Amino acid sequence: MRACHRGLIRKTGLNFHETCRYTQSWDKWAKINSTGLEKLVDDLLLRCWSDWRWFTHRVPLSSSTMLPGVGVFGTGSTARVLVPLLKAEGFEVHALWGRSEEEACCLAKELGIPFHTSRSDDVLLHQDVDLVCIYIPPSMTRQIAVKALGIGKNVVCEKAATAVDSFKMVTAARYYPQLLSIMGNTLRFLPAFVAMRQLLVEGYVGELQVCDVRVYGPSLLDQSYGWTCEELMGGGGLHTVGSAIIDLLSYLSGTRAHRVHGLLRTFVQQNGLIRGIRRVTSDDFCFFQMLMGGTGSSSVCCTVTLNFNMPGSFVHEVMVVGSTGRLIARGTELYGQRNGSKSEELLVGDNGWVGPEVKEMPLPLLQGLSSMVKALRQSFQAKEERRCWARGPVATAPTFEDGLYVQTVVEAVKRSSSSGEWECVEIMSHEPDPNQNLCEALKRNKN
Amino acid sequence: MRACHRGLIRKTGLNFHETCRYTQSWDKWAKINSTGLEKLVDDLLLRCWSDWRWFTHRVPLSSSTMLPGVGVFGTGSTARVLVPLLKAEGFEVHALWGRSEEEACCLAKELGIPFHTSRSDDVLLHQDVDLVCIYIPPSMTRQIAVKALGIGKNVVCEKAATAVDSFKMVTAARYYPQLLSIMGNTLRFLPAFVAMRQLLVEGYVGELQVCDVRVYGPSLLDQSYGWTCEELMGGGGLHTVGSAIIDLLSYLSGTRAHRVHGLLRTFVQQNGLIRGIRRVTSDDFCFFQMLMGGTGSSSVCCTVTLNFNMPGSFVHEVMVVGSTGRLIARGTELYGQRNGSKSEELLVGDNGWVGPEVKEMPLPLLQGLSSMVKALRQSFQAKEERRCWARGPVATAPTFEDGLYVQTVVEAVKRSSSSGEWECVEIMSHEPDPNQNLCEALKRNKN
Repeated sequence: MRACHRGLIRKTGLNFHETCRYTQSWDKWAKINSTGLEKLVDDLLLRCWSDWRWFTHRVPLSSSTMLPGVGVFGTGSTARVLVPLLKAEGFEVHALWGRSEEEACCLAKELGIPFHTSRSDDVLLHQDVDLVCIYIPPSMTRQIAVKALGIGKNVVCEKAATAVDSFKMVTAARYYPQLLSIMGNTLRFLPAFVAMRQLLVEGYVGELQVCDVRVYGPSLLDQSYGWTCEELMGGGGLHTVGSAIIDLLSYLSGTRAHRVHGLLRTFVQQNGLIRGIRRVTSDDFCFFQMLMGGTGSSSVCCTVTLNFNMPGSFVHEVMVVGSTGRLIARGTELYGQRNGSKSEELLVGDNGWVGPEVKEMPLPLLQGLSSMVKALRQSFQAKEERRCWARGPVATAPTFEDGLYVQTVVEAVKRSSSSGEWECVEIMSHEPDPNQNLCEALKRNKN
Repeated sequence: MRACHRGLIRKTGLNFHETCRYTQSWDKWAKINSTGLEKLVDDLLLRCWSDWRWFTHRVPLSSSTMLPGVGVFGTGSTARVLVPLLKAEGFEVHALWGRSEEEACCLAKELGIPFHTSRSDDVLLHQDVDLVCIYIPPSMTRQIAVKALGIGKNVVCEKAATAVDSFKMVTAARYYPQLLSIMGNTLRFLPAFVAMRQLLVEGYVGELQVCDVRVYGPSLLDQSYGWTCEELMGGGGLHTVGSAIIDLLSYLSGTRAHRVHGLLRTFVQQNGLIRGIRRVTSDDFCFFQMLMGGTGSSSVCCTVTLNFNMPGSFVHEVMVVGSTGRLIARGTELYGQRNGSKSEELLVGDNGWVGPEVKEMPLPLLQGLSSMVKALRQSFQAKEERRCWARGPVATAPTFEDGLYVQTVVEAVKRSSSSGEWECVEIMSHEPDPNQNLCEALKRNKN
């Protein structure tokens, strides 16, 4: 115990008396579980650190800025873009996590981040980190996001790999309602979609009938074999891009899908770099339909076509058609046409993007990310304490609940693609029993 | 019998000896059927007229032109456009049929057609008419088309209302292989699609993966309540526009759909003119998917979105994506992009349409119609006799067999829309028994 206690002091920076407060409850736990003590210690360390920060440390740690310090997970293209955007808005990025020391070191040096590591706890427990941005492979997201919330950090993260993971994230977010927990779907923040949503609410298109979305672009696969090639790891067009569209459509329409039908294809199963026994299982073409809102003929029909076999082009088009008009977002621009008029009007222009041009990242996502960072800045600036945030500026951001919904739709589309039938979207309300087979066997034995 | 014989002479313009040849077989028939004699007389009249024209009248009726005289059925927008196009190519339009005398008279006067009628036989039996163009409501097409072939007239016609009707047309076309019998889907003749087909054959896009079609436009409903409002009469976007797309995709890909999935909606069920107890049942929104060619993952995925709730705009876009490039026809223009290149290239330009501008008819259909008329002219000009035609110029035209395929797909999509499942496309190989229920009842009684 003493070693742990010492660890507690060392890791949290609390003094002896403070740590004692936590070790009381911790002692009780420790008696119950004599095995797995080390894990428990870790958990308690994190929990106490969180409480400590929340309940004892109410004065801003740094008086120079009201913005929280940021820790970034991931070394991919999004992380590479995000850090400069955060810095531009006045956030300080204190720590970077990468899967390997080399990756982390390399990017940290490039972006001028003082601390880098390949151990997640080192970022989560970093005392200057109050906001954690998680842009890592989907299969790892849940673990980091839940832990970060447990430690009392505000979280912006990308989607998880499965609905079960998403559900665990929802549970964590519900447990810490005072912490910021939003999904990093940046399309909601894009000015064109903000305006579209506003116009839909104002009745520009009348009664909404049809949403039609097309995203075409080059392959989403990484250069080397990795999670992007693997459907079960959260790779593929549906999971990567489709989920952002699913979220966007629920944001725009204000309703959710209740039935979906889809078709997934992997046209390119091998290429120059992925060959031999390796095969791509994630989809590069996906077409799905969603019935949203009311049932029967009053529901909104959404069709989404995603095609990532089109190198050299990028099409991002979202059209909503209603009884009295329509709105079309092409890239970052918004056009509208009422039924009476003869031609389209430009409602939101391009405004000339002045941020960085990033080859791997389409402009709508890039500008959306920029707008999201701005919203985060406003949210944190509205409060005096640097860990506190105002709900207003990020009120439209997708919550973890939205993340669970999106993940549920994604899985329903996948199910539909293999069954060939319309599938219902049923949001998980409790975590599935991991020992379901065992339980069923027991039940059978009973009868 | 004598009255009939006299009728035969009067109606056909044959002399007494010629008619006798036919009345021999006719006498036999007449003995078998003492009832329905009048109908039989009519049938024989038509048949003998046909034979007579084919086997006895091998010299051109008019030496001034090698082109056949044309009879047009229909007074709608297509017929209105077709007649000037025919005349421009040197065809003489001798007769016009309309549903009512007034309609026929009015349009005949407007277009300068010497003869008009509301009785179909008057056009079919008109001695100067060698080519019949049928652009009438789908439910009436089969009757006229089959009769026209029976009389020995070349036929260009629009789609029928049902697969059974299409099958009857196929049977008639097979029975008279020397007669021209083509479906009036003019998209196949549009230069952009001719070039697209050629480029696909040459391997511009590599292995074909995806076809993506979108047609958006204003309502297809007529001003007053009529067949366009009624699904069972062949109204609706799927039947009217979708069938042309289905045909086009089979032309472009060189394969046929084996499984389809679709969703139809009627968003506008009543409007200012169609109200009260009347309701539109034909679809104004339809999207469907077709799996074409090989089975499993080697099949081509086609997605088609049709939306006719978009007044003031017209979008007609056909995109084919393959392993090494893509081709996109926007309206009447064709663009292409190979995977290596950075931007699209214009392959077939607009060429500045110099024909009539028709408000009700989209430019691709109008230009296609014009190209089809040109092909017809070439086909007939290639032969010395004005009723004979060369297969070459119209070799790519859709046959009645293609018409049956298209109708089968349309019905499969409708079935899928109500069942919610993927439906197989099974081409009819024999006419369904009209007394199937009766037969089944008899079978049950037997057992």
